[in-house]
Order: sequence, then C-alpha cells, then structure tokens
Amino acid sequence: MNEWITNPIKKIDQSFYELAKNHQSQLTKPPGSLGALEDIAIQFAAWQGTLAPKIDNPVIAIFAADHGIANENVSAFPQAVTTEMIRNFSNGGAAISVIAASLNIPLHVIDMGTINAEKIAAEKLKNVISKNIALGTKNFAVEPAMSVEQCHQALGAGAEFVTQAKINAVDVFIGGEMGIANTSSATAIASVLLNKPVSVLAGPGTGLDSDAVKNKAAVIQTAVDRHQDNFLNKAGKVDALLVLQTVGGFEIAALTGAYLACAQNGIPVLVDGFICSVAALVVTQIAPEAIEWLCFTHQSAEPGHQLILDALKVKPLLNLNMRLGEASGAALALATIQLAINLHNNMATFEQAAVSNKN
Amino acid sequence: MNEWITNPIKKIDQSFYELAKNHQSQLTKPPGSLGALEDIAIQFAAWQGTLAPKIDNPVIAIFAADHGIANENVSAFPQAVTTEMIRNFSNGGAAISVIAASLNIPLHVIDMGTINAEKIAAEKLKNVISKNIALGTKNFAVEPAMSVEQCHQALGAGAEFVTQAKINAVDVFIGGEMGIANTSSATAIASVLLNKPVSVLAGPGTGLDSDAVKNKAAVIQTAVDRHQDNFLNKAGKVDALLVLQTVGGFEIAALTGAYLACAQNGIPVLVDGFICSVAALVVTQIAPEAIEWLCFTHQSAEPGHQLILDALKVKPLLNLNMRLGEASGAALALATIQLAINLHNNMATFEQAAVSNKN
Repeated sequence: MNEWITNPIKKIDQSFYELAKNHQSQLTKPPGSLGALEDIAIQFAAWQGTLAPKIDNPVIAIFAADHGIANENVSAFPQAVTTEMIRNFSNGGAAISVIAASLNIPLHVIDMGTINAEKIAAEKLKNVISKNIALGTKNFAVEPAMSVEQCHQALGAGAEFVTQAKINAVDVFIGGEMGIANTSSATAIASVLLNKPVSVLAGPGTGLDSDAVKNKAAVIQTAVDRHQDNFLNKAGKVDALLVLQTVGGFEIAALTGAYLACAQNGIPVLVDGFICSVAALVVTQIAPEAIEWLCFTHQSAEPGHQLILDALKVKPLLNLNMRLGEASGAALALATIQLAINLHNNMATFEQAAVSNKN
Repeated sequence: MNEWITNPIKKIDQSFYELAKNHQSQLTKPPGSLGALEDIAIQFAAWQGTLAPKIDNPVIAIFAADHGIANENVSAFPQAVTTEMIRNFSNGGAAISVIAASLNIPLHVIDMGTINAEKIAAEKLKNVISKNIALGTKNFAVEPAMSVEQCHQALGAGAEFVTQAKINAVDVFIGGEMGIANTSSATAIASVLLNKPVSVLAGPGTGLDSDAVKNKAAVIQTAVDRHQDNFLNKAGKVDALLVLQTVGGFEIAALTGAYLACAQNGIPVLVDGFICSVAALVVTQIAPEAIEWLCFTHQSAEPGHQLILDALKVKPLLNLNMRLGEASGAALALATIQLAINLHNNMATFEQAAVSNKN
C-alpha cells in the first residue's frame, strides 16, 4: 500500500533559474530591488519551466483530526473544537474560509479522524470529505498514536488528494491542519527528528500560560523518552515514518503524504506554520530533494518553528506574528506571491520603456 | 502661504481600539493568533471610528523630482532616468504601475520639478500632473537645495493633492517618490534629524558598490557639515523644515506636506520605504501626533531605514528585502491589509459558529 512513497521527486529544470533571473535583470528597476518578490517569481518560473509563470488554479486542503494526547491537558481549548471548526470552515466563518473566499481559492476539508467523525460524515457538510481512519489517535503518552496501517492510510489520503489535484491541473497546493492538541504531536516529532529537548520547542499553541506550557513540555518529554525504541528501524536508526506513527497525528501524516506527492508530481507547495513545517521536516527525511518543491510562507509565533526553519535552512516570506494554523499564513501569502508573479510578467524592460540602464 | 502647516492633527477616538480589540477576541481563533493582521485591522477601525472598517478608495501619488546633488556622482543611474520613469509609470511598465493595476488602485504621478519638467508637461502623459517648481533642486554640496519659497511650494503641492483626495473621499493615501540621487538627500536629512554620522546611514541606493557608497557618504557628510548654520532657527535649534529646505528634494517635501495634510484630515497613510520614512520623520518633528496616522508598511533593505524606524519606535508590517521606492512596498502591503480587514469583518464569532471558547 505504500510503494508510492519511494517514487522519485520531480527534477526541476535548473536552467530556468538563470533565465528567469536574467529576465528580472532587464526589468525597469535597480537589479535585486524587489528582493524576495524576485526570488519567489524566479522560483515559480523554474517550477513551471517557463519565463512567464502563472497561478491559475491553487487549492487549499485542510486536514483535521483529533489527538489522544488531548487527554493530558495540553491545549487551551476543549477537544470538541476540532469538529466545531470543521463546520466553521464549511460555513465560511473561519479565518481560512475568509482568506480563501477573498482570494477565490477553493477550500477542501478532510476529516482524517475526529472524535465526531461519524457525525460529521452524516452531516454532509459542503466541501468536507470524510476519511475517518479512527475517532482520533491514541494517547501517545500511554501508547503509540497510530498503528503502522493507520499511518500509511493517513499518508495515502494526503497523496490521494494530490493525485486528484494533479488531474484537476492544480498549480499550487496549500495544506493546512486543524486538531486540538496537535502542537503537542508536532513538538514531539520535531524533538525527535531535530534531536532537541522538548523544552526548547514547546510553546503556547492556542494560548497556554507559562505553567501550562511547562506541563505540556513535561508530558511530551516523558512520552518521547518512553517511545525511544519505537522510533528506531531494524538498523537501529531513527526512522521519520516510525516517529510520525508513534507520536504523530492523522492530519500531520496526511500533510506529509500530500507534500511528498506534490514533490513527486511537481506541484509547488506553500507551507504554512509550525505543524505544516513539521510535516515538511518528515518529508525531507524521507526524500531530501522534496524540499525543492516547498515554499515556506510565514514565520509562526510558535517558538519551535524557528528551530525547524533553521534545520531546513529556509527563510519564510512573511513574518506577521501569526500562530493560527488552518493554512491561514500560507493562503494569505498567495496574495503577495501573485503580485510577485504579476511584476515578473508585466513590468516593462529597460529596452521596451526606453529607460536608461545603470551607469 | 504656509499657515496650514500648523493646523491641528485629527484626534483618533481611542475607544475604538478597545472596541475593535474586543471584537477580535470574539472571532473563532485563539486570541491574538492573527498577530499583525489583528493589529492593522484594529488600527483601521480606530482610524475610521467604526467596528467594520473598509478600504474602498485608496490612492497612490508618486512625487518625482531631480536633485542637483546627482552631479556629485552619488547614484548608479543617470539623471535622465527620473523623467524616463515618469513615462514608464504612465505607460504601465513600472513596478508600481503593475501593482496598482493588479490591486485596482488609481495611480497619479506629480512632476515636482525634474530636469525635463517642461518637456514632460508638453507630452500630456496620462495621470501625470506638472507642478514644476524648478528644473531640479540646486546641488546641496554647493548651496542650499531650495529657497524657502520653493520648499513651501513643494510642501503645499503635497497638501493640495491630499485636499483633493479628501474631497474625493479617499480612505487610504499611499505616497511614493522617484528621483535619481534622492537617497542622498534623504540620508542628509536623516543624519541631521537623528544626529547620526552619515556613514551609518548611507547605503547603496539603486546599487552603488562599497567604494561608491563611501564616496556618497563623504559627499553628504561634507555638505551637512557645511550647512550646519542653515539648519538652525532663530532660537538656535535644528528646524526640520530648514533641514528639508537645505538638503531635501521637492518630492520629499511634497511627501512631507502630503503626510502632514493626511494627519490633519484623518486620512490613513501607508508609508513606503527609506525616503518616505524620512518625510515621515520630518512630519513627526513638525507635529509629533501625526505619527498616529502613519502605518509603516515595509522594512527597506537600505541600511538607514532601520535607524529611522527605531527612532520613530515603529515596526513595519512586511520585510521583503525591497529597496525600490515608487511606493512599491506600501502598495504591495495593501493586499495584506485588505485581507486583515476582511478577516476582521467576515469571520464568525464563537457564538455565531457555535464553537467552544478557551477552557
């Protein structure tokens, strides 16, 4: 069921980086003066293998799931919020709903397994798909969060969404997540993969006070310590997929599968904040070249995010002190990216405008 | 002719900060999780005295002028570029033209006095207004850049644009500038008003190499030293308007007048990069409360910008390593600000969406 995971990552035609950079140097502005806007337009040119990149068909997929670790009092919000927010996404009231509507981006929600997944499925909410793997993960403070089958099911669901997106000619994939307590799961994964103590990664998530953050960090550290052997493959090395299975979440696994499938299929990804970046971290451990298809869109206020960005050697486009998740930062960034592409395509060259070039 | 300068700054109804903040706290997200987007929406609510702010009628004004200091070999581009770019703005080929068209913002260009101002006026370019004060400023390395009358004429032209904008119900003012060598003028002003040596403020502008930056800094420092007495009012204190007159430019003075008039008339301002921030610095020395109407939109790559932002105690919204001017950063930021306002107005509250609030 998981042979697709080792499919090759799509190669980028490197020549387009130089060609697009050369085009930028002919536009009527001092060279480099559009900063990160030039970089992102050049990146899209290379991704699309064209000097005139475009974004005609972006899509947002929010993967939602519940987490057994929520039993350990690690979130400021009750677990019911995960399913309540699925309804809110569908009804247009959530932040990502407003951004998607403003920018005219189709928004899909995939219930990967919430505590009310059966109820949600019965409600037949608009743009909500049910992939109910289980009614939430197990509490990883006590036992592994998922079985190996469940983890591959979740990875596959993400990849399956992307396969369909590829058929629909989607040209940018924006993934997001919703799941009460999922910063705990993401923090546990990051702690193992970055080999850092939980205390330097754990943050307030949806709004814990400092005592509650300390409790959250202690719960996660104890769980990570307990599972050390579960993270190791037969060769005795830490295996990112085993870490994902043991302390991850269905939505984090789905994002991992989706990002990997995007990199295999050559669909550029706009990565959101902390939790999405943890999925990206898992992907890069499975297939390091996949990072070439990932654009990190914003710097989250969640403290662990910086450490992941540092480890991946990437600098996100925006820093707006956001920490909401639901793909809100990545979708918001699309407005700026679209302007960067318009500038690349529509500015006059020095020759066209009869403007004198640099002395 | 300059009595308007001392008109009072419009007071902001402070109660709307709290009211809008309270509204944000009811929206379906962890409190504060939209970061800077919440702050800017709250700021617009207070500016407009409403819980449902909106931007229906923004405007961009690019003030262009030439600078006598260009004779000192302080720019990487020839002086002809100022007028060539006026044509490019009008014809739709410049960066700001593309952004304005993408976001549907009317773009006006005001030739405040370029070396070809008479020729430009005769060409009757679309959306270009002629205010030709002189064919460029004097070289401030040799003599004061402007007469007192010219400085007031330039300030008045900026204010006049805003008076008309007020009549046209403009709800956001975006000012920009074009003028070969105007980072030299802006650096000179900032050096005097911040009381810092030119060497810590001078930067590459349109793209000088490090030797040329050193020459530029030396030229400006010598000029600033020579003009020390010209900066002082009758009481022997540094007077920002005398600094503007002595080492400024027509476009910087026009921006100063425009920003001041916006603050008097209660029109929110999106401040662009280094040169616009120097105009903002002059405004705050004339009328400190005017800063309440200024939104600093992006951090320029020009090194002096950070020192001005620090002095004004402001943090810009975006940091995209841009250094182009022409209002490009401020206009680009409008896309993000519009999304922030949509979120503020269109997200569901916890009550409306039946989402459980924080534990």
